[in-house]
Amino acid sequence: MERHEALEIVKKQLTEHRYQHTIGVMETAVELAKRYGADEKKAELAAIFHDYAKFRPKEEMKQIILEQNMPNDLLSYNTELWHAPVGAYLVQTEVGIQDEDILKAIRYHTSGRADMTLLEKIVYVADYIEPGRIFQGVEEVRALAQQDLDQALLQALKNTVQFLLKKNQPIYPDTIHTYNALIMKKKGESVHD
Amino acid sequence: MERHEALEIVKKQLTEHRYQHTIGVMETAVELAKRYGADEKKAELAAIFHDYAKFRPKEEMKQIILEQNMPNDLLSYNTELWHAPVGAYLVQTEVGIQDEDILKAIRYHTSGRADMTLLEKIVYVADYIEPGRIFQGVEEVRALAQQDLDQALLQALKNTVQFLLKKNQPIYPDTIHTYNALIMKKKGESVHD
Repeated sequence: MERHEALEIVKKQLTEHRYQHTIGVMETAVELAKRYGADEKKAELAAIFHDYAKFRPKEEMKQIILEQNMPNDLLSYNTELWHAPVGAYLVQTEVGIQDEDILKAIRYHTSGRADMTLLEKIVYVADYIEPGRIFQGVEEVRALAQQDLDQALLQALKNTVQFLLKKNQPIYPDTIHTYNALIMKKKGESVHD
Repeated sequence: MERHEALEIVKKQLTEHRYQHTIGVMETAVELAKRYGADEKKAELAAIFHDYAKFRPKEEMKQIILEQNMPNDLLSYNTELWHAPVGAYLVQTEVGIQDEDILKAIRYHTSGRADMTLLEKIVYVADYIEPGRIFQGVEEVRALAQQDLDQALLQALKNTVQFLLKKNQPIYPDTIHTYNALIMKKKGESVHD
């Protein structure tokens, strides 16, 4: 699917503000794919469609989570998490994208997961650092993303967990699993230094 | 078992510094048990024995975790977590305490768990705030413990997770489950306010 065609499809699903964010994620994801040797075309499509389900009614998302046997615990956590796995499902069924790498990058772009693929990391980090993002801590992650994708991802996860703690919000276990996997990988590497 | 008898047994297992800490936890746990209506005797014994396994060799602890089919993921996380479940096991088998309430308060005093009992919360918080503790944030938890045990526990958990993030240490999933359960309980309560 061509970029312009994909953008045309997703534009109808988003607000103007969210569409501009999507353009930012797309450009950033393609840059990161070049830098880290991922498939640029897959990075582009995953980024374009990452927020496809963002504005679906909560009831529709809930029903899809239940009917498609997605992890049930999603329903106990922030609804903000729902659009990622639901988005992967709708991008497959409504848009017709069947590539599992792309679908997984959409599915895990909010929660993360242990043992993320390169493409999943790229979309997660691109979503966090695209030029429209201006929250505290983003500059540090932007700088890290130039040098070490895992370090950028780790810092983004740490910022996210700290933000949730401050706000007294629940922390989705997969986010901690992502953090733990990166920390343990790092420790494993330093043991062999 | 009488206090003096229990103290005599545990003293042999600990350094002088850790024994003084244990006395502090014991006194604090009994105070909290009075305040929140828990069994004072059980709180006293659980506190006395909470660090029973603290100075066992790591190899011995590892073997017990494996042989007793304790959660295997413990071995992937900080060894600091091991003495709690291993302690519960040794307090049962070596000291002969069979009371499940006491054993569980020992077992979960480092990790916490979702749906902690009152006694478990008391030992966790007493361990965090006993008079010998002087780290950052302890005063706030001490003050909260006078008024609301769940709030004190929540703040202690938040401090612990923040500390681990800063130190790039893994976060044991049960600690997050404890935090999430308290946050969701609080949200549930505020919905009904």
